[in-house]
Amino acid sequence: MTSPTVDHSTAAGKFTGSRHIHGQEDRRGQFLRRFQGWPRIPPRRSASVHDLLVFHIVFGRAVQDVSLNSPANLGYADVRFVRPVYTGDTLRSETEVLGKRETSRADVGIVWVHTKGFNQRNEVVLQFYRWAMVNKREPQTKTGDNDSPDLPAQVSVENLSIPTELNLSKFDPVVTGSNYFWEDYEVGERIVHPQGITMEDAEHQMATRLYQNTARVHFNHQLQEKSRLGKRIIYGGHVISTIHAISNDGLENALRVLAFNAGSHANPTVAGDTLYAWTEVLDKIALGRADCAALRLRLVGVKNIDPNLEPLTLKVRDEKSGRDQYHPNVVLDLDCTVLMPKRRR
Amino acid sequence: MTSPTVDHSTAAGKFTGSRHIHGQEDRRGQFLRRFQGWPRIPPRRSASVHDLLVFHIVFGRAVQDVSLNSPANLGYADVRFVRPVYTGDTLRSETEVLGKRETSRADVGIVWVHTKGFNQRNEVVLQFYRWAMVNKREPQTKTGDNDSPDLPAQVSVENLSIPTELNLSKFDPVVTGSNYFWEDYEVGERIVHPQGITMEDAEHQMATRLYQNTARVHFNHQLQEKSRLGKRIIYGGHVISTIHAISNDGLENALRVLAFNAGSHANPTVAGDTLYAWTEVLDKIALGRADCAALRLRLVGVKNIDPNLEPLTLKVRDEKSGRDQYHPNVVLDLDCTVLMPKRRR
Amino acid sequence: MTSPTVDHSTAAGKFTGSRHIHGQEDRRGQFLRRFQGWPRIPPRRSASVHDLLVFHIVFGRAVQDVSLNSPANLGYADVRFVRPVYTGDTLRSETEVLGKRETSRADVGIVWVHTKGFNQRNEVVLQFYRWAMVNKREPQTKTGDNDSPDLPAQVSVENLSIPTELNLSKFDPVVTGSNYFWEDYEVGERIVHPQGITMEDAEHQMATRLYQNTARVHFNHQLQEKSRLGKRIIYGGHVISTIHAISNDGLENALRVLAFNAGSHANPTVAGDTLYAWTEVLDKIALGRADCAALRLRLVGVKNIDPNLEPLTLKVRDEKSGRDQYHPNVVLDLDCTVLMPKRRR
Repeated sequence: MTSPTVDHSTAAGKFTGSRHIHGQEDRRGQFLRRFQGWPRIPPRRSASVHDLLVFHIVFGRAVQDVSLNSPANLGYADVRFVRPVYTGDTLRSETEVLGKRETSRADVGIVWVHTKGFNQRNEVVLQFYRWAMVNKREPQTKTGDNDSPDLPAQVSVENLSIPTELNLSKFDPVVTGSNYFWEDYEVGERIVHPQGITMEDAEHQMATRLYQNTARVHFNHQLQEKSRLGKRIIYGGHVISTIHAISNDGLENALRVLAFNAGSHANPTVAGDTLYAWTEVLDKIALGRADCAALRLRLVGVKNIDPNLEPLTLKVRDEKSGRDQYHPNVVLDLDCTVLMPKRRR
Repeated sequence: MTSPTVDHSTAAGKFTGSRHIHGQEDRRGQFLRRFQGWPRIPPRRSASVHDLLVFHIVFGRAVQDVSLNSPANLGYADVRFVRPVYTGDTLRSETEVLGKRETSRADVGIVWVHTKGFNQRNEVVLQFYRWAMVNKREPQTKTGDNDSPDLPAQVSVENLSIPTELNLSKFDPVVTGSNYFWEDYEVGERIVHPQGITMEDAEHQMATRLYQNTARVHFNHQLQEKSRLGKRIIYGGHVISTIHAISNDGLENALRVLAFNAGSHANPTVAGDTLYAWTEVLDKIALGRADCAALRLRLVGVKNIDPNLEPLTLKVRDEKSGRDQYHPNVVLDLDCTVLMPKRRR
Repeated sequence: MTSPTVDHSTAAGKFTGSRHIHGQEDRRGQFLRRFQGWPRIPPRRSASVHDLLVFHIVFGRAVQDVSLNSPANLGYADVRFVRPVYTGDTLRSETEVLGKRETSRADVGIVWVHTKGFNQRNEVVLQFYRWAMVNKREPQTKTGDNDSPDLPAQVSVENLSIPTELNLSKFDPVVTGSNYFWEDYEVGERIVHPQGITMEDAEHQMATRLYQNTARVHFNHQLQEKSRLGKRIIYGGHVISTIHAISNDGLENALRVLAFNAGSHANPTVAGDTLYAWTEVLDKIALGRADCAALRLRLVGVKNIDPNLEPLTLKVRDEKSGRDQYHPNVVLDLDCTVLMPKRRR
């Protein structure tokens, strides 16, 4: 996230000519960027850290206690990105166990926790609920635990935090390369992002080490070979980051993640899978500011089916259980709220 | 590029003894480096950025507009490395479309562009012509476009830029580990570089992301699986960087890239290929300076044939077309000009 | 290595509650970390560089001269980590050839060297003996060389260097997440580390490039394909780093490597191998300080056999030669000395 201070009218004067001007393009097509580059502001001593990197680092701090041997991280709720983090900041996290419940499988239960991430001034930078499958110490013994907490269905508007240092009144779209502002998105609209990205073991392992997330399923092929998947499982957070990166083509001006209202890792991702994404605009949220507002989005990640070529139903009826289940190629269903600059008048 | 300030005569006095002195070695063999390490200058607040990294970043800025869906980047001309870039600098690029031409294939044409990279003071740091294959919107419709530009065959000497802050009068070869100076190279000489490097998908993808080059063919295996190659194509710039790195063993004192006179990506490179390189000295260029001069080199990259073991003809007659074509194992043919310190008297 | 200055009694007051307190856990099990994070000290302008990174960089400087074409690095002795290195320091290394000996194979001999690493103030930061297999120029010619040096069996206590700037009297175990101090380890104790890590070509190549170690066997698949292993060999130092990382789970408070008394790369490691490790406590060494002391450890790395599930004998009798040889799954046998904080009274 940057807060460019270049005046648009001045910058526009520097657009270079092009002998071949492309014709009018459709909304999701390639926007003609005649001027490209990062904002011409002097290098800063400290840059803001990407919201998802903050999420992964705070999350990683909690893996040793909660999910080191966990077969699967299941979901998130009420994830609030409270304060920006800058390079040089030091993060720590605290986790409270909220409840647990046994499952139909004797060997695993589900544990609900609430994690808070703090900077070196003990200010909360991030907080979230999550639940994960955890191995039972004694699979034979019923514990009777059944105190899963009630979690909010979304982060309410008053809990969305806009950094006080952020002023987008002079935001210049040449910085991001997109002319689409908050006003240009409509509730119900669906954006299929064009990019597909194939996952590699070396890449997800290095990303996951960066977050100091040491959960075994991500790193030990010999262990995973014997599992149902037969492969190392990619850390769900790396899937979120990849899907988020894919969604940039179409959401270039989503400058900051404000919240994950809810999120599910619908199916696991492994090396060799190619990920794609689409976004549905769920809501447009005014924030009482002239420079920016929020979009509530449903960001869906799928594997090995290109939604640009082949539409895909998110949930399918399972014949056996009679219940709706995620299509086996869906990997992420993330209800999130992002910040977008408003068009200047 | 560094500008070491250590006096050679002093440093020589610090060479350590070795009980076993290797015998006289041939020109391309292993030079006996009795003293190793980086120059003993105090750490700088800002280091110069490698010329090829500058090239890739400026190039990457132009991918979204020119070659996001391009099946192939074909060549370069008149590539001038105008000014050094330092860490902390901010780069942007501007691209002008110069001309286009249809090809024998109905679905693609060739587009010629001129790209300039600027730093935050709006000084040009790099400029180049390139041409790429681009998909046609309507393959059935003939456009009649045929205005490909005339491009210079080389960067003329007066357009070679030596950084004004560079003074190599006290250059110490212990810094690079090689005793070969500009005087030691001869026109017509051929240097076969000993190293071979095998390419990995995870590595080229991460390098290419660093340059913010998001062209699909580099990242989407599912898309490429259906192509003739069946694999993700490695970004040509990563091939240039790899071949350049291989060429360091034999050209250790080529401290700066001044120009690419011309360059062709003769054949694509994919993960699993092992790259090798040789260099032919095309010309020796005096620059009117006592401390340094330039070499014009033909840097050739090949795949899966070690030119140290098996010589290879660059171009072969194609029976069908009757034209000379690159040997299918050649991946890069780069005519470039580099800066080299002169031997001190 | 950090030297935290947070007072434990104060930090303890910030431990957060947890509704579900885990039961008493066994010594090697998961220690309940209620508070996690990096020390809350202000960001420093210069952080200390990990001891093993220093080792790899100093080692890498010596590869060009000693082992560029070496088929195998065999062992180390008397490796002393003399001084901490900080970001911004500049390292160089000097190597003296000590002796050489022919082997039963006509084409290779063994060369013994002593390498010293220096910082920009010409202070020794690291010094070590190593020996490596090196190709002979003329396999047919017997040289008669047989002057391998006598090497010390261990680094003596007076040669262990504790950084003068290190004061662990206020070390807070929340920083590392482990409550085990020097007093808690016993001679003869064996710690089997739980983690297993699968190696990737892209990962070891990138690590090895970082160290500027360009030995061919690590990078050229086409060359290695024809070898006995059929694969690129992973740089032994990367194996040491990986095994060292695995050993962190059980040795969290081993804050600094003081010495490698001796080390052997028992068998090669290649991509696809999964590494595991165990540690035997060989000795407890008082250093005459109230805040810390040393442990002498035997750190063993194995491949593709999880020692948590299946015990493994380090050496096995070879029927043919009648000599004890390393089990073919052992990759590293490292006798090292580490620094540990003492429990405060």
